[in-house]
Amino acid sequence: MPTRATTLVHEDQLFPADPTTRGIARRLYAEVRDLPLVCPHGHTQAAWFAGNEPFPDPAKLFVQPDHYIYRMLYSQGISMEDLEIGAAQLKDPRRVWRLFAENYHLFRGTPTRMWLDYAFHELFGLEERLSATTADLYFDVISESLRSPEFLPRALYERFHVEVLATTDSPLDSLADHQAIRDSGWKARIIPTFRPDLVVDPDFPGFHENVARLGQLTGENTASWDGYLRALARRRQHFKSLGGTATDHGHPSAQTANLSRAEAQSLFEEVVTGPAGRAEASRRELFRAQMLTEMARMSLEDGLVMQIHPGSWRNHNRQLFERFGRDVGADIPTPTDYVRGLHPLLDRFGNEKNLTIILFTVDETAYGRELAPLAGHYPCLRLGPPWWFYDSPEGMLRFREYVTETAGFYNTVGFNDDTRAFLSIPARHDVARRIDCVWLARLVAEHRLDEDEAVEVARDLAYNLVRKAYKL
Amino acid sequence: MPTRATTLVHEDQLFPADPTTRGIARRLYAEVRDLPLVCPHGHTQAAWFAGNEPFPDPAKLFVQPDHYIYRMLYSQGISMEDLEIGAAQLKDPRRVWRLFAENYHLFRGTPTRMWLDYAFHELFGLEERLSATTADLYFDVISESLRSPEFLPRALYERFHVEVLATTDSPLDSLADHQAIRDSGWKARIIPTFRPDLVVDPDFPGFHENVARLGQLTGENTASWDGYLRALARRRQHFKSLGGTATDHGHPSAQTANLSRAEAQSLFEEVVTGPAGRAEASRRELFRAQMLTEMARMSLEDGLVMQIHPGSWRNHNRQLFERFGRDVGADIPTPTDYVRGLHPLLDRFGNEKNLTIILFTVDETAYGRELAPLAGHYPCLRLGPPWWFYDSPEGMLRFREYVTETAGFYNTVGFNDDTRAFLSIPARHDVARRIDCVWLARLVAEHRLDEDEAVEVARDLAYNLVRKAYKL
Amino acid sequence: MPTRATTLVHEDQLFPADPTTRGIARRLYAEVRDLPLVCPHGHTQAAWFAGNEPFPDPAKLFVQPDHYIYRMLYSQGISMEDLEIGAAQLKDPRRVWRLFAENYHLFRGTPTRMWLDYAFHELFGLEERLSATTADLYFDVISESLRSPEFLPRALYERFHVEVLATTDSPLDSLADHQAIRDSGWKARIIPTFRPDLVVDPDFPGFHENVARLGQLTGENTASWDGYLRALARRRQHFKSLGGTATDHGHPSAQTANLSRAEAQSLFEEVVTGPAGRAEASRRELFRAQMLTEMARMSLEDGLVMQIHPGSWRNHNRQLFERFGRDVGADIPTPTDYVRGLHPLLDRFGNEKNLTIILFTVDETAYGRELAPLAGHYPCLRLGPPWWFYDSPEGMLRFREYVTETAGFYNTVGFNDDTRAFLSIPARHDVARRIDCVWLARLVAEHRLDEDEAVEVARDLAYNLVRKAYKL
Repeated sequence: MPTRATTLVHEDQLFPADPTTRGIARRLYAEVRDLPLVCPHGHTQAAWFAGNEPFPDPAKLFVQPDHYIYRMLYSQGISMEDLEIGAAQLKDPRRVWRLFAENYHLFRGTPTRMWLDYAFHELFGLEERLSATTADLYFDVISESLRSPEFLPRALYERFHVEVLATTDSPLDSLADHQAIRDSGWKARIIPTFRPDLVVDPDFPGFHENVARLGQLTGENTASWDGYLRALARRRQHFKSLGGTATDHGHPSAQTANLSRAEAQSLFEEVVTGPAGRAEASRRELFRAQMLTEMARMSLEDGLVMQIHPGSWRNHNRQLFERFGRDVGADIPTPTDYVRGLHPLLDRFGNEKNLTIILFTVDETAYGRELAPLAGHYPCLRLGPPWWFYDSPEGMLRFREYVTETAGFYNTVGFNDDTRAFLSIPARHDVARRIDCVWLARLVAEHRLDEDEAVEVARDLAYNLVRKAYKL
Repeated sequence: MPTRATTLVHEDQLFPADPTTRGIARRLYAEVRDLPLVCPHGHTQAAWFAGNEPFPDPAKLFVQPDHYIYRMLYSQGISMEDLEIGAAQLKDPRRVWRLFAENYHLFRGTPTRMWLDYAFHELFGLEERLSATTADLYFDVISESLRSPEFLPRALYERFHVEVLATTDSPLDSLADHQAIRDSGWKARIIPTFRPDLVVDPDFPGFHENVARLGQLTGENTASWDGYLRALARRRQHFKSLGGTATDHGHPSAQTANLSRAEAQSLFEEVVTGPAGRAEASRRELFRAQMLTEMARMSLEDGLVMQIHPGSWRNHNRQLFERFGRDVGADIPTPTDYVRGLHPLLDRFGNEKNLTIILFTVDETAYGRELAPLAGHYPCLRLGPPWWFYDSPEGMLRFREYVTETAGFYNTVGFNDDTRAFLSIPARHDVARRIDCVWLARLVAEHRLDEDEAVEVARDLAYNLVRKAYKL
Repeated sequence: MPTRATTLVHEDQLFPADPTTRGIARRLYAEVRDLPLVCPHGHTQAAWFAGNEPFPDPAKLFVQPDHYIYRMLYSQGISMEDLEIGAAQLKDPRRVWRLFAENYHLFRGTPTRMWLDYAFHELFGLEERLSATTADLYFDVISESLRSPEFLPRALYERFHVEVLATTDSPLDSLADHQAIRDSGWKARIIPTFRPDLVVDPDFPGFHENVARLGQLTGENTASWDGYLRALARRRQHFKSLGGTATDHGHPSAQTANLSRAEAQSLFEEVVTGPAGRAEASRRELFRAQMLTEMARMSLEDGLVMQIHPGSWRNHNRQLFERFGRDVGADIPTPTDYVRGLHPLLDRFGNEKNLTIILFTVDETAYGRELAPLAGHYPCLRLGPPWWFYDSPEGMLRFREYVTETAGFYNTVGFNDDTRAFLSIPARHDVARRIDCVWLARLVAEHRLDEDEAVEVARDLAYNLVRKAYKL
């Protein structure tokens, strides 16, 4: 028995063992592996590309920003303090890195392991597995690389063959970093995405202050319903002016509403300008619901593509939230009802051909039962790729298995990497391309699709559909 | 790389690529491929066989009645008007056909594509893929065929090797077409199925008028609870007299009730004879719930097999409903609770060996969690095959995967095609037979079942179980 | 075509047909097949090992205690009376056995069939399939074997290579049988598990009497909140003193609560010492919820591992319950909400590294959506293996598929057999080991894991993780 693979990333990775299917998958993959990366949704920082400073060290680069990594370590009893999560500067990056390396076996069978191995191998030329034994080797090799010009953010962007990269930004952000990139004359397409949660969700920490700031920023009176809506429309225009083509909405549920103007105004007064904390939970939920419909209306007007990411219980671990804040790996999916939730919005805009709403889910039971039937009927709806926990080989196969039979391939919108971990971007796209080829290869091997059709679909899934759906 | 398959339907279609498993699947399939078709549940029209008129043209035959087809086209921005949906006579069938053909790539990976290719190839001898290029060829070949005697409804019925075909009919239907078929002396078994939704669901459009008509038709006073029940029992007898063996119930939920006689009577007076539109939604739901239990009671008395199809949100797209009516591809599945919902009915009749209730679902999460455990225990329960959106290769495999481990094969009832598209019937049965052979071949290949047993099961699933369950 | 397999259990059973993957699976399985059995959760009786009496006959041994078997027979119209379910002594065991044998085809494709064939073949040397024809042969061979010393409970325990076997016991049990085993000097590790449902669930039949008996047994005043809690803590100590390392909690839901001391005391007075049957359902549910949190607190104090088995609707078939009592195959899974339900408990103890809570589910939709995200974050949580209906090859593969990507392998705790059927124990572990090897073989074949890592994981899943999680 071999004691270890000779390389970290095998050329046939993820392809089924059956030789016929593997052969087809290889041929399909050869057609898409080198297509440019289109990244319409993610969480990289425009500041990295504006400043183009070197990434500091392996721990700061890989461990600290990636809650996929430290949530797993934390689940096995390793403390946030030992990982220096939340520290602006790491006191002892090598110690953090060793702790991670010693526990690398925890990631066996996870997509995180694949993304990391891909980056270690493809970017840093590492060939042995990460472990306690190789921890220092890794630390030194990566550290040295990071000091070279080829590892500056802009150089990596180009090396990754990125065609367009969207960030996710607050409406209160000036987008100065985006402006700086443009002003620098660097020929890259990095664009903002309008993510208004903090000014449309009354449960967002600092909501009332945020709404006030929105008013200052736009010169609108956000203490009135009309002024508030105008302020949002203005900020959307600002995002558009810097290349933005989409909005994104992360709500606790998929609930929408279709209130009359008078009802909406009265709700606004109760929830937003009324005494803070007085409105009941159901009224705050109704406000979020109405705001999704308002955003859809604005999208119909200004052409921005609308993304809805519902269903996550944010900050489930209260103690951790109080000590370390948001986005520390303690968000947990919940059952999500799309059929009832989206009905008010669809009742108003569902048949609009000039509106694009891309739906995501962290409740996979909705794929076949709700999302594919909805997207396979309503002209405005499209399905986003597997999201968050399901951005995995199995998750991607399930997505195709449950969605294709009812909604086909052409009501989906290709892949997005949705990541804070810049170096994982090529790996994530590579996994997605491989898995789509695996799915298509199975259809071809079982004589359900001809191979020339499969090639066309593979290219559409890797490149064409995302550009079309996001108007890129 | 081949540019296209040499035939539309490959003899190994749907069989796994692994040679061992494929070999077993082929042998099993050879044992069932030519068994007669038993069709206990569907939506063909008795009038077709009574009149035996030629089908008009390809668009009218394939596109217009098949909401699987036009919901997909509609989802991609093609209008119902352009497809002439709802028109009694098509103004320009060739134009509709071309529109469909140009967009045939949308169906890649869907079962609709497989059913269509099967019909194009097996019935019309077409060998090239449907596309913009071949649209006219297809239109002409199919049009010409439809004018020949071999393509009349009765000839196709015989060619398809149908042993029995059940239609789905309103209790207000005189069943004159069924009578006419019998009177014609044609030796075919076409039987009605009693589908009383429009007289038991207070939310059905025209419900009150329907109940009144039920009274006129039977000479019973349907303004009284007893008269209403007697009228339903009489119509069930009429269906039986024309060969019917089953009823079918399409409810929004699986809720049942077990009210006392007095409670039921009072509920009837409130919901049915009280002022129209006054009863609250929860009371109308309770009335539907109680009626399922009343229907089970009647089934125990008259021997009709009871089918329950719950969980679909009908006419989710209000605008389309207002313009085009029911059944236009805008029904969407919802989560369905069987364990709580069926409890009242099962509490009363669950242990009856002489009652057969066949359960269907559009919520696949219920397969393993609720339906298999229920059917693997209660003697009156059996599980219907994958329904509607899940009548697909993947859907059928999931059904076997989730159900067999707990309920075995013998608490299921074989396949039904559930279709309005008469020409898709052989294709649908063929897919079902292939997939069951795939599932069984895997069990044999993994040494979990002997091949002689698998042959027996394959024949039971294709032919024997459905005849037994539906008392055919 | 072969008419039947030459042996009941093939050496490659459950391994995929693809030769590459099968080869890897074989190599992995060779590394784990002979490891000792660790059985941390089950329903065998300590009395069997204390008394070491021969098992009576095949029907009493296989059919009567196994609700997997007779629920299937019952679902097909065979009466409980004909199977002599509930009889202390069987009147005609051979007749019961024949009835079972004639219907053995009902179990095709189920895990029960695999477990039985394994026992028939491995323990009794039977080679032909069980059927009407071989019923008497089986009965005679098994009956004769059961009279030999090698088939006494203690001899089987040793033959099975069991390292530790946990029973499940009431807090009102004196554990005299466990004491007797210890006193006998027999070198086996059979340990009790503390299962307090009958004294913490107000809906348990006899609840109030049980609480009173708990008081008598411990000398505590269980009519007071403090005395009741002290009595429970004392019984936990008693279980520990006889080797127990775990508790088990079978609740209708996963709801927990985190009440103040005063609220809890007042709830106790209302539900436990108040007039029987007066407290509302929601208050009884709240009491169960609070008791889970109290048990977690005690686990933190005394170190017992806490198992939570929620979500089963017990005794769904009222008629059968009234005639035959509990545990007769009529418990049905229900949708279970872990994210909201566990929040109060996790809010209090979720970050404790010295607490271990093992979660089980009969709602598989929770695997990927709730359980893996929770266990992949909270240090106190681990995931138990597939439970009850899902303790099947497909169920085990789904568990790995849905859980590994988010929680990895090391937040799971290996296998437990959870059975009343002592003779099925080796078969169940064998199936689990094979399936884990199948899952790992696929990862290796697809170049996602090196084979040396897979060997390590296979051994961890079969042996190391369960010992660590249960502190054995």
